[in-house]
Amino acid sequence: MRVAVAGAMGRMGTVACEALRSANEYCCGLARAADPDREIVASLEEVLARKPDVLLDLTTQPASYEISLEAVSRGLCTVVGSSGWSAEQRAALAETAERRGVGALLVPNFSVGAMLMMRFAEAAARFFPDAEIVEMHDAKKKDKPSGTARETASRIEALTGRTTAVHSVRLPGLVAHQEIVFGGFGELLTIRHDSLTRESFVPGMLAAVHAVVSRRGLSIGLDSILQSAP
Amino acid sequence: MRVAVAGAMGRMGTVACEALRSANEYCCGLARAADPDREIVASLEEVLARKPDVLLDLTTQPASYEISLEAVSRGLCTVVGSSGWSAEQRAALAETAERRGVGALLVPNFSVGAMLMMRFAEAAARFFPDAEIVEMHDAKKKDKPSGTARETASRIEALTGRTTAVHSVRLPGLVAHQEIVFGGFGELLTIRHDSLTRESFVPGMLAAVHAVVSRRGLSIGLDSILQSAP
Amino acid sequence: MRVAVAGAMGRMGTVACEALRSANEYCCGLARAADPDREIVASLEEVLARKPDVLLDLTTQPASYEISLEAVSRGLCTVVGSSGWSAEQRAALAETAERRGVGALLVPNFSVGAMLMMRFAEAAARFFPDAEIVEMHDAKKKDKPSGTARETASRIEALTGRTTAVHSVRLPGLVAHQEIVFGGFGELLTIRHDSLTRESFVPGMLAAVHAVVSRRGLSIGLDSILQSAP
Amino acid sequence: MRVAVAGAMGRMGTVACEALRSANEYCCGLARAADPDREIVASLEEVLARKPDVLLDLTTQPASYEISLEAVSRGLCTVVGSSGWSAEQRAALAETAERRGVGALLVPNFSVGAMLMMRFAEAAARFFPDAEIVEMHDAKKKDKPSGTARETASRIEALTGRTTAVHSVRLPGLVAHQEIVFGGFGELLTIRHDSLTRESFVPGMLAAVHAVVSRRGLSIGLDSILQSAP
Repeated sequence: MRVAVAGAMGRMGTVACEALRSANEYCCGLARAADPDREIVASLEEVLARKPDVLLDLTTQPASYEISLEAVSRGLCTVVGSSGWSAEQRAALAETAERRGVGALLVPNFSVGAMLMMRFAEAAARFFPDAEIVEMHDAKKKDKPSGTARETASRIEALTGRTTAVHSVRLPGLVAHQEIVFGGFGELLTIRHDSLTRESFVPGMLAAVHAVVSRRGLSIGLDSILQSAP
Repeated sequence: MRVAVAGAMGRMGTVACEALRSANEYCCGLARAADPDREIVASLEEVLARKPDVLLDLTTQPASYEISLEAVSRGLCTVVGSSGWSAEQRAALAETAERRGVGALLVPNFSVGAMLMMRFAEAAARFFPDAEIVEMHDAKKKDKPSGTARETASRIEALTGRTTAVHSVRLPGLVAHQEIVFGGFGELLTIRHDSLTRESFVPGMLAAVHAVVSRRGLSIGLDSILQSAP
Repeated sequence: MRVAVAGAMGRMGTVACEALRSANEYCCGLARAADPDREIVASLEEVLARKPDVLLDLTTQPASYEISLEAVSRGLCTVVGSSGWSAEQRAALAETAERRGVGALLVPNFSVGAMLMMRFAEAAARFFPDAEIVEMHDAKKKDKPSGTARETASRIEALTGRTTAVHSVRLPGLVAHQEIVFGGFGELLTIRHDSLTRESFVPGMLAAVHAVVSRRGLSIGLDSILQSAP
Repeated sequence: MRVAVAGAMGRMGTVACEALRSANEYCCGLARAADPDREIVASLEEVLARKPDVLLDLTTQPASYEISLEAVSRGLCTVVGSSGWSAEQRAALAETAERRGVGALLVPNFSVGAMLMMRFAEAAARFFPDAEIVEMHDAKKKDKPSGTARETASRIEALTGRTTAVHSVRLPGLVAHQEIVFGGFGELLTIRHDSLTRESFVPGMLAAVHAVVSRRGLSIGLDSILQSAP
């Protein structure tokens, strides 16, 4: 498996390249400025010339849409690590991937732990309809509730029809934490996720890259590839 | 739905009868001494005469085996809330239930929260093979680790081949708590169950009683009936 | 030490009498209806005739004020377990206790754990001015935030001038829990109190009863007697 | 206030120099190789020539003993951030600091949160003699229990005569966490410290540097300077 990384010089890209090198799966990087020492090139043409198995697109919008659509239309399996795609953009990517017979995977959140937390929350909500969410983040995070908390609450609501209170704690020293407490008859069930370093996205990213090569068309979310895990 | 309760005067039986009365699903009780005021009779014959839909057997071994085997052989769907059944006893109950075409359900632990905790632990272990268990119980509980902790660890081992360390905390003031911490790459996923009152077994018991009437043969564990929940 | 209990038939009184009997420190009870079997009498005169060392007044307002003022004016050391005393009532009790040279102790909350939590919160706030409180109670508790959370926040504000956010979680299955998270530079300090049964007030009550006999005048709060603990 | 940092190129030293520069309290660094760009010199003579108010010694043993003893004997107030000092070495430093009339402060752990956790644990142990410690660290930490857990347990034992069980959890993804659970009568009191980044030692280090200039002789531990905090 040889992986090319678009956005190789960014915050996530740097960590991804390092992880792929450790796994002996690094093909090359794509960035605005080429850097031969780190096998970083400046155009998709040069990436294609190196014949990677997968493109991992870690750029942000609007670059993300252009790069990944072009890669898929050239027949390259692509994992896109960006959020903020419109329905129209998703449809265009899906259509192109179908037509070319290659896999495309759009993953807003690579954290395996966050994905499992949400999956467990949905399973628990079938039995314990009463829940509240406490999400805790560094004081610098100004928006509240967090995206993950909103998605968790909306998944629970979709299943049970009930709204779930979300409490947002903002303190210096916190990183990124979420706890969902389900209250039942004389018992509590709590699911908690702590994301303590930015490297936490690496295992999900590697799983996505390995999964996309056997897919056709567009899949969305880590959930779609880890559904049928052993 | 009309439910008869064997062991109606015991600790769990008392709570069960009360819960069934609240749900308007109480048929009668079975105990050593009859008590007409509470519709408690002293023989299985009298129970059968009242034509319950289900027998909920909350006696302990060895009474449990005799009562539930006899009930099933008389064609009565039965939920057994006891552990300590030998393989031979299980086989006998299974064979009788098959032959009579009625459902029998053997449930060592009625807590829905504990069942979900173990199910989630198995799911998480596929992605995070490193885990440790901290179980915390009242200082009066002398055995350690707890049965639930041992079962959790053995299920994780069956899936991953890895042993899971279990830490047993015993303090006054604790009731019954268990936490499984999964460690990944820069992230943690924690599943915690707190059982704070003895009433916590009621929802699982009601679910079992409702499920058994549409079963044939022997099923084991709450998991078997809640698997395909909506 | 021989203790008389006013409000002996109430919820707290029943637990208190039992605890005092176990400690071999029960003198008698005071309730509306006498009960010779349990050494419960119906008037303060009869209580005084039995010469207790301390009166533990567990009645509620307005009875509480009358009973304890009368007891103190008769020279009996008194511990009052009630809230809702006006400034005027406190002043009258203080004046009477001073004049008679006996101890009176007004304790709104007997929980030693809650007292330590608040004391630690004040100490931590000197070093970590950023804190948030998460208090969690059974869904039946309609008022929010809880009294303890409000008192904790107001003590922190008195010290630091900062307001502390309070998050109130209400779920079935919860009992009474509070967590104060202090956020610092790359670190967190958390103080948590779980009150799981109503018996949790007993140790603080016994400490109050033992302390009041060596006091003169009015003291308020468990903090006042446990300040200089060994 | 102008602070010189010995061990300026080390892991802690780098963070300390940065924090002091931000606080406008950086005088110079001391390291094996001088680096004029960062005002790092290679000898104590050059440090003294720049007339700092305090030396912060972040070297490790055996360098730590030599550097700080020499600094104190030359009349420079010194904060030493190292453990592993023998009783003889401590005595020599104390004697020299007394003789020269300057302050010396030996601080094995600069974390304010860890210090408060231990102080609270001692206070809680007076009321709740039953406690257990759960310390959780990254799987790379091979020694167990951690130094902080051992110190916490030994302080509780010194007060109560009871040994405190310590549970050591080692998992990838963990950083450095400790929880002390005190069990009482129907209640629990939990004190938890999470150290999530290496910067967490900075506030305690700054407090130590500010405190040492008004001391005479040797003081040990952050506790000694934060005792009488406002």
